[in-house]
Amino acid sequence: MEKINIAIAGYGNVSRGVEAALKLNADTELVAVFTRRPDQVRKRVKDVAVLHIEEPVPEELHLDVVILCGGSKEDIPVQGPQFAARFNTVDSFDTHASIPSYFQTMDSIAKEHGQVTIISAGWDPGIFSLMRVLGDAFLPHGKQYTFWGRGVSQGHSDAARKVTGVSDARAYTLPIEAALQRVRRGEAPDFSKRAMHKRLVYVVAENGADHERIRKGIVTMPHYYDEYDTEVVFISKEEMAEHHSKLPHGGFVLASGETGTGNKHMLEYRCQLESNPEFTATVLVACARAAYRLHKEGRTGAFTLLDIPPGYLSPHSAETLRKDFM
Amino acid sequence: MEKINIAIAGYGNVSRGVEAALKLNADTELVAVFTRRPDQVRKRVKDVAVLHIEEPVPEELHLDVVILCGGSKEDIPVQGPQFAARFNTVDSFDTHASIPSYFQTMDSIAKEHGQVTIISAGWDPGIFSLMRVLGDAFLPHGKQYTFWGRGVSQGHSDAARKVTGVSDARAYTLPIEAALQRVRRGEAPDFSKRAMHKRLVYVVAENGADHERIRKGIVTMPHYYDEYDTEVVFISKEEMAEHHSKLPHGGFVLASGETGTGNKHMLEYRCQLESNPEFTATVLVACARAAYRLHKEGRTGAFTLLDIPPGYLSPHSAETLRKDFM
Repeated sequence: MEKINIAIAGYGNVSRGVEAALKLNADTELVAVFTRRPDQVRKRVKDVAVLHIEEPVPEELHLDVVILCGGSKEDIPVQGPQFAARFNTVDSFDTHASIPSYFQTMDSIAKEHGQVTIISAGWDPGIFSLMRVLGDAFLPHGKQYTFWGRGVSQGHSDAARKVTGVSDARAYTLPIEAALQRVRRGEAPDFSKRAMHKRLVYVVAENGADHERIRKGIVTMPHYYDEYDTEVVFISKEEMAEHHSKLPHGGFVLASGETGTGNKHMLEYRCQLESNPEFTATVLVACARAAYRLHKEGRTGAFTLLDIPPGYLSPHSAETLRKDFM
Repeated sequence: MEKINIAIAGYGNVSRGVEAALKLNADTELVAVFTRRPDQVRKRVKDVAVLHIEEPVPEELHLDVVILCGGSKEDIPVQGPQFAARFNTVDSFDTHASIPSYFQTMDSIAKEHGQVTIISAGWDPGIFSLMRVLGDAFLPHGKQYTFWGRGVSQGHSDAARKVTGVSDARAYTLPIEAALQRVRRGEAPDFSKRAMHKRLVYVVAENGADHERIRKGIVTMPHYYDEYDTEVVFISKEEMAEHHSKLPHGGFVLASGETGTGNKHMLEYRCQLESNPEFTATVLVACARAAYRLHKEGRTGAFTLLDIPPGYLSPHSAETLRKDFM
């Protein structure tokens, strides 16, 4: 079988997920890792070129696709344009408000250099974006809802950690079940932020810290917590390590609407993920396959999951898909 | 706004759904109906050319897409090749086993005549096919399940109507809730047909007919009923008219699997449709938009929902989708 040669840029949670996902996909192979810490990564990753991410890529290295696994804030905006000038790339850029401008930047670079770049792949943005578009296309005067959770919000966890007296914190986003049920019943309600989600924060306090003061510091924090009902639960360092070391996430995209003669319809997509970074990684690998195929067809420029024929994500041929999946 | 000129071929349940859906989509317009009964259809459909389906299409009629709304058994296999030789077409051909050969036929005709034809669009085949492909692509060693219902099976209703003593019958397919729950828990079970679905048949018996004999005739019927647990409920003609005149349907596509380091994930797509033909119709209209766009790009040949960039189904521009839906 023809293998797609893949490199990973950055070496964190998502990268380790990509590394594992590549082993589960028979048509893909990891051939290189770009990292700021090549010595450390070489101890973990064998039989693969491990290169410093800031040094020039050797001319002789043949790569079909580079998967960018860094963060959306500082890594991808820099590394995306760099790698897209020489390779097909895939990333999970997830700063929603900046997707249009990042798309433009990547599109012009990739077109100029004859590459394909798939941006903002993962579950949200990514699969959830796709579900929102399908729901709107099929129920054009309907209503759309996205609920997230139960899952760990890393941004909210980081914010809670900054409160005085907090030694460690883990914040969960939870959808409000009653709100979900109202949507499922076809009521098409309008919700405040508070009505759709609540937050649950597990906190390890520093010795002698005032718990009530910590609680108030978290639940009143502007932007992060003040628009939600938030519960703060104090636990020990050991409980944190035992029960809150994973990064689960998930959510729901719902569309409800009527067709021409007043019949109601409800579409619901749901994912429950034990590991947010590992699932993001498996979507990135499927997109790497799509990038490889699009490039082989002579396409260039930037794409999102909205622009890619879904069959291109699959390891199976179009004939097999028509026979076994239609 | 530029309007997409659309014609409907055939005039039944799905066609009336298409007619209604075209009114909800600002960029589409019904310009012609092809039917075997033009006189009857003219009474219902105003300001539109109504033409006999077996007569030659007038040269001056400008159509962007013809939506084929006839049955998969006798109508589409004949009308598909006829219309695809002159127009872009969309259909909901749903004889799963014949999709590969129908695709080949339509692909060669559409390519020869420079047209685009989207086949087998609807919810299953169609959206559910797409969900099966996504589930398999993202969880490559996982398991996939499709459950149908609660919904009316027209084939099973027709079969029950043929039993001696039955005046009318309506058969519902029901997913077995306990089986769904096992899948959702990530157990990845293997199921018999009987373990996934059951059937519920409402029967209006002829005067003096033997109910027990009818019941046995239905539940033991090979292919249709013998592999399922089936409940038969006798009702009056009036109850049938009042409670069972609609054609609801729906179902679930589930994928469960693990990523590299043993984390479990569950993806679930669900639709609940008050009217199976009307929802099929709204999918067909979104596909007509996609066919129009693909044709404008110079593409030709046959496509399924697996081959179409999802954004092409949407009335919004790619820029709007990136800004508001990603």
